[in-house]
This record gives sequence, structure tokens and C-alpha cells, in this order.
Amino acid sequence: MAPWILPLLYSLILLQSSTSSFAKFQPRYFPSSIIGPSTRSVASNSEPYKTKYFTQILDHFNYIPQSYQTFQQRYLINDTFWGGPNAPIFVYTGNEGNIEWFAQNTGFMYDIAPEFKALLVFIEHRYYGKSIPYGGDKKKAYKNSKNLGYLSSTQAMADYATLIIDLKNNLTATNSPVVVFGGSYGGMLAAWFRLKYPHVAIGALSSSSPILQFENITSQYSFNNIITQDFRSESENCYKVIKGSWKQIEDTASSHGGLELLRKSFHICKNYISGDAIEGWLSTAFVYTSMTDYPTSSSFLAPLPAYPIKQMCKAIDNPSLGNDTFAKLYQAANIYYNYTGDVPCFDLADDSDPHDLGGWQWQACTEMVMPTSGNNKESIFPVSAYSYTGHAQYCEAAYNIQPRPTWITTEFGGHDIAKVLKRFGSNIIFFNGLRDPWSGGGVLKNISKSIIAIVEKEGAHHVDLRFATDKDPKWLRDVRKKEISILKDWISEYYHNNLADSYTN
Amino acid sequence: MAPWILPLLYSLILLQSSTSSFAKFQPRYFPSSIIGPSTRSVASNSEPYKTKYFTQILDHFNYIPQSYQTFQQRYLINDTFWGGPNAPIFVYTGNEGNIEWFAQNTGFMYDIAPEFKALLVFIEHRYYGKSIPYGGDKKKAYKNSKNLGYLSSTQAMADYATLIIDLKNNLTATNSPVVVFGGSYGGMLAAWFRLKYPHVAIGALSSSSPILQFENITSQYSFNNIITQDFRSESENCYKVIKGSWKQIEDTASSHGGLELLRKSFHICKNYISGDAIEGWLSTAFVYTSMTDYPTSSSFLAPLPAYPIKQMCKAIDNPSLGNDTFAKLYQAANIYYNYTGDVPCFDLADDSDPHDLGGWQWQACTEMVMPTSGNNKESIFPVSAYSYTGHAQYCEAAYNIQPRPTWITTEFGGHDIAKVLKRFGSNIIFFNGLRDPWSGGGVLKNISKSIIAIVEKEGAHHVDLRFATDKDPKWLRDVRKKEISILKDWISEYYHNNLADSYTN
Repeated sequence: MAPWILPLLYSLILLQSSTSSFAKFQPRYFPSSIIGPSTRSVASNSEPYKTKYFTQILDHFNYIPQSYQTFQQRYLINDTFWGGPNAPIFVYTGNEGNIEWFAQNTGFMYDIAPEFKALLVFIEHRYYGKSIPYGGDKKKAYKNSKNLGYLSSTQAMADYATLIIDLKNNLTATNSPVVVFGGSYGGMLAAWFRLKYPHVAIGALSSSSPILQFENITSQYSFNNIITQDFRSESENCYKVIKGSWKQIEDTASSHGGLELLRKSFHICKNYISGDAIEGWLSTAFVYTSMTDYPTSSSFLAPLPAYPIKQMCKAIDNPSLGNDTFAKLYQAANIYYNYTGDVPCFDLADDSDPHDLGGWQWQACTEMVMPTSGNNKESIFPVSAYSYTGHAQYCEAAYNIQPRPTWITTEFGGHDIAKVLKRFGSNIIFFNGLRDPWSGGGVLKNISKSIIAIVEKEGAHHVDLRFATDKDPKWLRDVRKKEISILKDWISEYYHNNLADSYTN
Repeated sequence: MAPWILPLLYSLILLQSSTSSFAKFQPRYFPSSIIGPSTRSVASNSEPYKTKYFTQILDHFNYIPQSYQTFQQRYLINDTFWGGPNAPIFVYTGNEGNIEWFAQNTGFMYDIAPEFKALLVFIEHRYYGKSIPYGGDKKKAYKNSKNLGYLSSTQAMADYATLIIDLKNNLTATNSPVVVFGGSYGGMLAAWFRLKYPHVAIGALSSSSPILQFENITSQYSFNNIITQDFRSESENCYKVIKGSWKQIEDTASSHGGLELLRKSFHICKNYISGDAIEGWLSTAFVYTSMTDYPTSSSFLAPLPAYPIKQMCKAIDNPSLGNDTFAKLYQAANIYYNYTGDVPCFDLADDSDPHDLGGWQWQACTEMVMPTSGNNKESIFPVSAYSYTGHAQYCEAAYNIQPRPTWITTEFGGHDIAKVLKRFGSNIIFFNGLRDPWSGGGVLKNISKSIIAIVEKEGAHHVDLRFATDKDPKWLRDVRKKEISILKDWISEYYHNNLADSYTN
């Protein structure tokens, strides 16, 4: 389904529930849902990888007969620049979607591969893309919790460890240093992978990974506060217009003829409309634009201009097509949903899922319970508080399952992370851009000499991982330079230790 | 079943198999099987703990409906010396047996608790003792691989993490530093727990943990080489008599009236005898005596004298009851099986399991594939090579399951451990005594400033964890002093960091 329809889906499913209102302003699925196929055309022209499959076991952690079932896990491999055995292997730890999409959106790895003589490997996360258990039968794999139950972060990381070890053996490259890369959920997996599998990866570049957005470690208000600040810092009027619009939409929706007025104002298709759906549709545009507030043009479901928040606020502050609130909002939404101008009407019932992101809802209902939906008085969205109960009710209704909201911190930690990792672990870069609403749940301070936070005030969601362009601002080039320099240190140190050993052994 | 019967069990089950001979000289179950209830009487007099239960989930790593089943996990707790919130918590990560047995055999924790004002917690490993899934119905839990499948090291560690976090919350002791302790398999779990759950435990004392006895990291001949060396260093004649006996036993067993001769010579009960069973029974005595070659008297199924190998070799070198090989061996075996002299005959078919160790066979058939059965020309046992095929055939026959022999190194590492952990991780003590056959698979060199190997030439299997006695030799007192000093450093550092933070935050 299209990401912007998910809040609507929540609302629809919870329509009878007392907590139905909590969801419409919160795209609850994961950040990466918003990195779009911006570079797909670039990448697919040159087919920059070979597609391979690895036979993976269904459950690594128990030994009941069904856990021995296998599935085909897809991975993409590019050896154009590889220096061969001993040369580095850069692995992208795939997140919640088609791996081609992530490979095409992680240009940084391609950009630096020649310099490092690195082999590039992009591993698809189980239950996404073509890495579907039950013989690749997605309908069967997603049928119920009995079949979906093996979709979890720990299983995915065990997949990665198993595949990487096997691949290195097959390439007779057991001595090659492996560095893992990931953005968003993939960045969480990269950081956790370095912590849990230090014998497999010598380091991790973990970009925009909100590993602290669990339990009460990070405020539930942080996410929307950052969005609020993104718009407000652009223009106080822009913020005020958006903040004031929700009540107006609700009042209009409940008045006689109001829905038709909204349909006209926002160019909504005739098949479906509701006040909630409009609000979800608009808020999604604001949330995703905050995440992708990149300094150069990018592309999501449709292309976006550079600095899209600035453009949205321009549309609101200096409207060209009409001066009432709905006209302003329509023009702002148009930047996000229709920058090319060729969408005749917006279909609020569209539930297509071109990037196979649907599994995230399952993950959010099991372990990825990330409270982000609080809105305080200053929020650009209406005041609300995160409701675990509401979330659990949704999960019960959708999957007949109870979330395990404390599991992630039990398995991976998070509380007092600076103290815990001060003298434990090494070689992780946490990048965060402060315009990214997820940055509130990121690691924003250096933890030790080699567990390093790179924080960029002007940055958005894993902007560092995008393909470099001529128009990249200096701060972005500096971020990447710093990352490259740290990667070089890790790899040099690895070679130094191996070389030193060859003398002493 | 009694540990010494296990090799017999292997032989019996594999009698038809071409690899039946591989097992009889190898007690394949785990080292801790041999730490006996030596101090049970001491400990049980004072009931040094309260018994509690924690509701634990059946499978932490997937979300299929059956994984949500729960079971009652037993843990023992002693707060006699605890300084209350903020004071340390010492947790024993239970191994493959009844937790009371381990608690009673880990006197070191009791001995040092007052000095540290520590809370003592001993957590029972799932599927052992009273921590049995399926409502505590052991017969059901052990019925088949479908029910046994949740018995694994990763599930056990997730149990420990979950329980410790919950316990700390309940005691309002979230700031208490937790140190984990364990010997043998429990020591492996302690070390791995520190590596995987640094946010739960600030350090680990991992005693006699052969975490490198997997795949080809450690030679399959190491285990029996150490046993050989243990006996040979005592007396060359002792070694030669034992080494020469196997052929004589086999020849006798296959000759007319030979089994009756063996029965008489070794005082075997009338219900069962075979040449293989005698060999298994004898070799078990030699293996276990090597592991428990302690400097003070101890107790296993029956009491053992101090330095039992010396006593065995005395019995062989200066026999008091007869000068032929069988008489010598009988007297040596008597030290191990009948030191008090009140066993009328030895029952080779006894398969009682007083310490609930039976689950180890399952673990050895799934993930704990530890090649130790190689015997080279010099071995005190007949020449043989480890056979993975034979092991896998046994597992197929016994449980209808295939082992996953590369899983432990995939999940926990082991290859190049010194390089991997040189700049990753901290606060682990690996103790090994070089008379212990498992020490070959242990970490015997310091890895970093705080991942430290304590190696004691005279030591046997986790001798450091035993209750202190007046008769302990200086080296043993020194080992414990060093351990205590390191534990103090970890805890001081932890407090220092917390105190420092309270000023800067």
C-alpha cells in the first residue's frame, strides 16, 4: 500500500475503537517507507549488481521441526571494484522492503566502492521483496501469525550472519573485513549487528537509526516536535496555517455538503473520502516531507524539489491559486503528492504497496513498538498522547497478536546506552540529521573513541547515504568525508592487526 | 541417567551402526555433569536461598502463536548479604541441570557475597530441574523434537536477560550492577551473556568454559591429550597399564567365559555386562577424574579424595589386592566409583539421572557439537577420530533431528577470538585449570586489558568456584584473590561512572 494510506488504514480498522483518533496523524510504519526510488532509473540503467539467492533456515533459534524449513533469500552483489580476497566487503543490512529499492537508494556505497576496492552486497530482509518463506508464496507467508511469526529482527540478523559467513567461505575471502551499512530500520540492524556479531562485521555505519525510540527512552513528543520545528523555522505563518487547519477540516467534514467541498478543494477522487482520510493524507505529506527535506531534488512516489519544506511553506505563505486555508494546504500537499502536476485526482483508497513495505505493520505489532505519536500544545498537529493500549488493540484486531513492547530493549539495550557502551563495543558511526523527525530517537553524542555520533543540523533522513551530486552542500560533503575517514581507520586497524599477527604467530 | 552410563547409551543405540565404536570412550555430555553434590549437605543444612518462579515466554525470537506459551522458570535468591538497591547482584547463569545442584556447588559466590554486599541469584536453565515447559510436565517436554525444540542456548540467555531486568525493576534496583557467573556450560553462557547483553551484565566470571571447542578451532585430540597427560605426569607405568588394558578387555570379552571373568574382576552386577560397557565405564572414570582432579577431597556420585588421579595411579602402581591388569584397574575405578567402599556391585545398566542432565544430549544434537573424541597414538585411549557423521546418525536415531554444527560460531564467534575481541567488549574473566580436559577449548591468553585469562597449571574443572576450605593450596587462594580484585575493579568503575554522571547530567 502507498505509505500515505497507512494512517487511513489504521483509522478504518479502528473506527469502532475508542482510540480510533490516535492514529490518523501518525504514519506509524517505518521511516524508510519514505525513501523513494529516486535513483532507480540511474541505477537500473547500468544493472549494477548480480542477483543471487541463498538457502536460509526459517528459524535460527529453536529446533522444532518446522524451523528447519528453508526459504530463498535474495541478495545483490557487485564485484566491479572488488580487490579480491582480503579486500573489504561492504554489506547493506536490508530493511523493510524490496532490496533493489534500498540498493538503488544507497548510492554512497557505490560512490566509495572504488576507493576501498570493496565488494558490495545488499541482503534482502526476510519476508520482503523476493525473500519470502513458504516457497516465495507471499500470500501464504502473510496469511496469519503462524506463518508471519518468523518475521523478526533477530531472525533477520541471524540470516545476515549466516549468509555473510557462507559467502566469505565461498569467495575464499574469510580474511576480508566486513563493514555493514544501513539507513533507518536498516541502520538499526547495522548497529545492532555490529554489537551482536562483532566476529562477522568489523564496524557499522548506522544512518538515521532511532534505536532509542523505544519504551520511554525518548519522549513520545520528540518526533512531532521536530516536524513542528521544521515548519516553524521556515515560517511562523506556515506553521500557524497548518496547525489551524485540522479543526477547520473536521468542522467542514461534519457539515452539510462539507465532504464535497473538501473533495473539490483537495482534488480527491470520487471513490472515497472522509475527514479523517483527508487529515491522514495531509499529515502524511508533512511528516514525510520533514523526513526527506533534502538539500537537492529527490524523488519519492513522485519527484520532490530541493528543500521541500521551504517550497511547501512558500505555497502556503504566497499562495498562487487561492487564499483560503484549503487552497493553501492543497498547494502545499501538491508539492509532496504531485510535484510534476500530472495527478488528476488523489485516490485516498489506494492501498497499493509498490515497495513491499506491508510487513512493517507486523513488525510494529510485535517488537518494533516505537512511541512517536505524542503531540503537545505547540505541535503542528492536534494535541494527543501515544496510546499503547490503542496500538495493542489494533494489533489484536489486525493479527490476533499481542506486541512485546519491552523486547527490543531487553535484547538490544537502549537505556543508559552511553554508560553501557562506554567501555564495550567499538566501530559504529551513528549519523543523524536534525531535521529528520526520527533523529530524536537516535544516538546524538559520541559514546567512545570509536562509537561516534555525526550530527548535522541541516540533515534529513539518511541523507548521507544518497548518491553524491554536484549540488550537494558543503556540510553534506563534509559528513561523507568524515564517514570515509572513519571507515578507513577501521579497515587500516584491521589490516594492521592481521599483518602484525602474521609476524608474531 | 548417571553420567557414566551415557557412553554406554551411545553404544547401545548405535550398536547396529558402523560408527558404534566411536562413542564408548567419550562421555559426550557436558563437563558440568561431573560436578557432583559435594557440598549439598553443607548448603542444604542452612537453606541458603528462597526458591522463586518467573513466568517466561516459550520462544523469544519468533511470534508464532505457540511461542507465546509460558512456563515457570525457577530461580534461587539469597539476600542475606545484599546492600539493597545499588548494591551488586551476582547472577549464576544456570547450566544443564537442577539449579540447586549448581547453587550448592558454586560456593565462591556465597564466600564473596558479604564482602560485596551482593544479592545472589541462581537462575535455572529452561528444560532442566523444575523449569520445564508444558506445565512442568517433563515427559511431555522431552517427548519429541516438536516439544524439546525450544531448548537452546539463545533462548536460555534471553530468559536470563528478561528475568534479570524484571527482577531489578521489582527490587527497584535498576542501578545495581549485575555480574554473571558460571562454570562449564554455565561459564559459556556467562561469557556469551556479557558479550550479547552488555546492557544487562557489567561483567562475567566464566570458569572452565570451552567456548573454543567448536568446529576446528580447537583440535579434536586436545581433550584426550590432556587426560593422557594428567595420568602420564603422575606415573608412566600408570599410563601404560591403562593404555594397554583396552585390548585385553576386548580380547577377554570375546573369549569363552571372558565376560564372567570381567564381571568378577570388576564386581559388576549380574543384570548386564558387555566389553563395550566395561570400557565405557572405565574410561568415564578416567575422564571424570581428570576433570575433578581437585586439590582437596570432593564428592561426586560418591566422595573422592584430594588429587584423585594420584590415588588412582597409586592403586595401579602399588596394587594392594592383586597384581594383574584387571585387579589394578578395578582398584583404580574403585577410587572413582566406590571410594567409601560400600557399593556391593556396579550396575552398568543404571540409567537414573539424579541431576536432570538428560537434556544435554539434545543440546549436543542440535547446537553444542563439540568435537573432543579424537585419540592419537599417544592417547591413553585407543586411537580414533571424531566422526561428525556418526554423531549426526546418532542424533537422527535418537531425536530425528539434524545438528547445526556451525551455528555456535555463527552466533557467538570463536574463530580468531583474540582479534575480534581485542577492541570489542570488556569485563570477562576466563578461568581455566590445565588439568581439566576441557581447558584445551578455553580462552588461555589475555585478550585485552579487561578480557582476562586466568590459567592455573594445577587446576581442574572450575575449581575456583568451589567453596573455599582451609586446605586449599596457595595457587587456588591466589586465583580467587585475583578474581575478587578484578570484580572489584569492574564494580568500582561502574559506580565511578554513575557517580561522575550524577555531577555532569
